[in-house]
Amino acid sequence: MSHAHDRCALILIDCQQGFKDWDYWGANRNNPALEHNLLQLLNHWRANQLPIVHVVHHSRDVNSLLRRDKSSGEIWPELTPIAGEELIVKRENSSFIGTELEVYLRRNHINQLAIAGLTTNHCVSTTVRMAGNMGFDVRLVGEACATFDRVGPDGSTYAAQLIHDIALSDLHGEFCQVVNIGELLTNVANQCR
Amino acid sequence: MSHAHDRCALILIDCQQGFKDWDYWGANRNNPALEHNLLQLLNHWRANQLPIVHVVHHSRDVNSLLRRDKSSGEIWPELTPIAGEELIVKRENSSFIGTELEVYLRRNHINQLAIAGLTTNHCVSTTVRMAGNMGFDVRLVGEACATFDRVGPDGSTYAAQLIHDIALSDLHGEFCQVVNIGELLTNVANQCR
Repeated sequence: MSHAHDRCALILIDCQQGFKDWDYWGANRNNPALEHNLLQLLNHWRANQLPIVHVVHHSRDVNSLLRRDKSSGEIWPELTPIAGEELIVKRENSSFIGTELEVYLRRNHINQLAIAGLTTNHCVSTTVRMAGNMGFDVRLVGEACATFDRVGPDGSTYAAQLIHDIALSDLHGEFCQVVNIGELLTNVANQCR
Repeated sequence: MSHAHDRCALILIDCQQGFKDWDYWGANRNNPALEHNLLQLLNHWRANQLPIVHVVHHSRDVNSLLRRDKSSGEIWPELTPIAGEELIVKRENSSFIGTELEVYLRRNHINQLAIAGLTTNHCVSTTVRMAGNMGFDVRLVGEACATFDRVGPDGSTYAAQLIHDIALSDLHGEFCQVVNIGELLTNVANQCR
């Protein structure tokens, strides 16, 4: 039997058009399966009538692509929220700072989260860190996250795949469990029986 | 002329005896200059009578080395807090979750932070991310941070130095500025004139 407090919420972070402009973010993105995997998660959550939260970034920086007043701030068409799904607008990296996300989850007695989106090392990592530290039970869907190449303070360029892999390694077992999509979908479907 | 709100606080994170047991944390630690650099920061802040915050981790896990009831939970002798310095006890990775750190900083009109300690990718990174997202002006002293080798969810082992470098790259320009000790000490001394 399923209880309200057993439900696992899917949290999709920053799946916005601006992230299609790879050159703006670092030229190379990892994980070509990102779009497919995100859609698979969303479809599964919808089919099982489980809670879904879309987080979008509305930057304070007028030059950012992730703004409310630009088409590049829109969510990818295939992931557009539908009635009954929660939309959280954030202005910082963390989905919990300056937003109603924590209140939404606590009021709905949701303690399990499945988190995916962009970018693995920035907004996803920061959200997972806070969620874990606040006591949520977090599954991080590494296969449905991605990031971009980045230049460090010493001028070295780090490859997107390496940044992504080390971000997952930093988080796994400390703030969350990194899970495979296959296992996750099976476990979540079992919650609904 | 110096104003109260110009002061930069030094925040030293988790410089506790338990982190001397390298085998427990991953066998290899990077940055052999860590101890020297932390002491240099602390001495400089004391000499300039600037605010100093010592953050210690008291784990809820009975097997952890970082506990109040174990000698391994104590701060390194050379960094022991003295009268007038703030001691913040945290139970999670973030120095801001479940602690009075934010209230201490806001009440003392401190908006500039210089952060150092252990580990670069866990408690330091999580604290820097939240501080930056909450509007603090953060300088991260990479030369006075360190971490350990770590095994990722895929079973790969990542070297401490690489994890450290990518953690700094993730944070620099997004949540903070990574600064060299030389520049930082000069800038901070200038604040006091």
